[in-house]
Amino acid sequence: MAAAIALSSRGRPESAPNPNVGCVLVQAGRVVGRGWTAAGGRPHAEAVALAAAGEAARGATAYVSLEPCAHAGGRGPACSDLLIAAGVARVVIAAQDPDPRTDGAGIARLQDAGIDVLFNVLPAEARRAMAPWWTRRAEGRPFVTLKLATSLDGCIALADGASRWITGDRARAHGHLERAQHQAILVGRGTFDADAPKLDVRLPGLEGRSPQKLLLTSGSAPAGWTAVAAPESVEGVDSLLVEGGARAASAFLAADRVDRLLLYRAPVLIGGGRPALGDIGLTDLADAHGRWRLVDSRLLGSDRLDVYERIRTI
Amino acid sequence: MAAAIALSSRGRPESAPNPNVGCVLVQAGRVVGRGWTAAGGRPHAEAVALAAAGEAARGATAYVSLEPCAHAGGRGPACSDLLIAAGVARVVIAAQDPDPRTDGAGIARLQDAGIDVLFNVLPAEARRAMAPWWTRRAEGRPFVTLKLATSLDGCIALADGASRWITGDRARAHGHLERAQHQAILVGRGTFDADAPKLDVRLPGLEGRSPQKLLLTSGSAPAGWTAVAAPESVEGVDSLLVEGGARAASAFLAADRVDRLLLYRAPVLIGGGRPALGDIGLTDLADAHGRWRLVDSRLLGSDRLDVYERIRTI
Ligand SMILES: NC(=O)c1ccc[n+]([C@@H]2O[C@H](COP(=O)([O-])OP(=O)(O)OC[C@H]3O[C@@H](n4cnc5c(N)ncnc54)[C@H](OP(=O)(O)O)[C@@H]3O)[C@@H](O)[C@H]2O)c1
Ligand SMILES: NC(=O)c1ccc[n+]([C@@H]2O[C@H](COP(=O)([O-])OP(=O)(O)OC[C@H]3O[C@@H](n4cnc5c(N)ncnc54)[C@H](OP(=O)(O)O)[C@@H]3O)[C@@H](O)[C@H]2O)c1
Repeated sequence: MAAAIALSSRGRPESAPNPNVGCVLVQAGRVVGRGWTAAGGRPHAEAVALAAAGEAARGATAYVSLEPCAHAGGRGPACSDLLIAAGVARVVIAAQDPDPRTDGAGIARLQDAGIDVLFNVLPAEARRAMAPWWTRRAEGRPFVTLKLATSLDGCIALADGASRWITGDRARAHGHLERAQHQAILVGRGTFDADAPKLDVRLPGLEGRSPQKLLLTSGSAPAGWTAVAAPESVEGVDSLLVEGGARAASAFLAADRVDRLLLYRAPVLIGGGRPALGDIGLTDLADAHGRWRLVDSRLLGSDRLDVYERIRTI
Repeated sequence: MAAAIALSSRGRPESAPNPNVGCVLVQAGRVVGRGWTAAGGRPHAEAVALAAAGEAARGATAYVSLEPCAHAGGRGPACSDLLIAAGVARVVIAAQDPDPRTDGAGIARLQDAGIDVLFNVLPAEARRAMAPWWTRRAEGRPFVTLKLATSLDGCIALADGASRWITGDRARAHGHLERAQHQAILVGRGTFDADAPKLDVRLPGLEGRSPQKLLLTSGSAPAGWTAVAAPESVEGVDSLLVEGGARAASAFLAADRVDRLLLYRAPVLIGGGRPALGDIGLTDLADAHGRWRLVDSRLLGSDRLDVYERIRTI
């Protein structure tokens, strides 16, 4: 199942607006097919895996990160019907589909066909892998990642504004990889004016992946950019990467619209530089606690990346 | 040898002004004696280990973190003479003693007595374990550790000064352990006035270890405290822990008097709070690089401790 969930991440962000699902077919201890939701949302992960397995799917176990769909779309049959037709013996599901058109109906259809179904085996992990889709479906807003690149003392620039470069090559390359995994990127008008950032993905093979460019401003946006008036007004995307500056970052935090924090930290001290954040509306230190959980930490060259997730009680 | 170096740390800071040395005696694959420099600097590590081993020292191998001394003090015989008298067959030395009274003379005396000597096997590791003694010997100044406890965005307090508590119990307990390992602790006058800090070691069994208290001020110090006029004026101690505030920390950094950074970071965002540092004299970002090396990183509850060492080209 871990493999199916890992595969599901390959569908991000291109499967949008469909969920990014992963599927692994196992026959007598051997993987006979693998798949993930393709760009644009079709074909689904199950269809890809079944096509790869061919006759070997008969009697196999299918591991899927999300409940197979029960509704046939205009673009293809329902995945539960495909699994039945292929003669799969067993289906293991990480998380149930919250989409009311499926929500249990996929499971029921498989069971009615005599297939052994095990479900909700790793719901939290599956949800995390599909966080953008899940957040937009459940809350009608994008899943927002905030990126900050700071010195050890939390500065994003010297007092005179110089910020090239605080972090090193590997951290910056990782930042480009994150860009490729988002549908849209946002900067504030201050950063736009100061840096004229291109926000493209400068990584070999991923150049085509350059996301939509959003500008946080009370004014209008230049060609190629979409103006966004407030953190609450981002529309039409599942995943958003906020790249700064300090005021844009603070606005998203003050609105509690940040779900994930990427903190790139270089082993340098600046002292008296520009702080990473301005006011975010905190008045009592006690309220700052219990909001962020460290989910990943790694060294990128001599920089450290810490990834935090917003702890939300649903 | 790693064991002898690890043991040497137990002598810190109480062996001062003598070096903290560790010694392990091994006879036919078994440890027959261990020792480290006692409080006040005597007995030496070798004397302790030989006393523990008794007759088993005959023919044994002695692993010592620093070259055994060749000069008999008023308080006891030279360690190289003790090792010879005990009939040790082999001596392995991590680092040579820079003290001109020994510096190779200990090795020569052992070799003249027919003992097999291997030396300079782990000099950097041994020096690090004895960094306070080494720094004061070599540079005539204390080895300085700067402690900073910040939020993820590098603040040490809210804008209104509130800083209780950013970090949790375990990080604070670790801070007390660090206090116990230093001969002196320093705060700036601003912190003294704001917090009236006790700077004692509030850990069971270590209450007796409370270090000297230094106050960075252009004025005078109250009873129980010693006034220090500038980072360059700290005298009479091998190891100093600087606990803040921002101006005191910045003064030590601006004077390039910080050898080790303890960064305790809580998973909270403050936004627009008081920065950890003020001006440290940096004008070009390029100069900030290559100065700090990460040497330890651990989680203390939900806080992270990163330990950095100043990279000095000697
Ligand atoms: N090291 C790093 O990681 C990093 C990353 C990015 C940027 N930077 C640096 O940060 C500096 C710019 O940062 P900054 O804080 O001055 O500017 P900023 O955050 O990039 O942009 C501020 C602008 O965003 C708009 N805005 C902010 N909050 C808003 C809200 N709630 N609703 C609507 N619009 C809002 C306003 O534009 P209007 O006035 O048009 O309404 C405001 O003037 C630059 O020097 C840049 O180089 C550093
Ligand atoms: N979260 C944390 O880790 C932490 C730790 C400690 C403190 N704090 C907070 O930090 C605040 C105090 O910080 P602060 O920056 O205002 O004050 P500070 O650094 O504690 O003290 C500043 C004072 O130190 C003396 N000083 C500084 N540099 C000097 C130099 N180069 N030579 C001689 N004297 C020098 C001066 O005293 P004179 O005016 O007497 O000459 C100056 O007024 C407090 O609110 C405290 O609660 C937080």
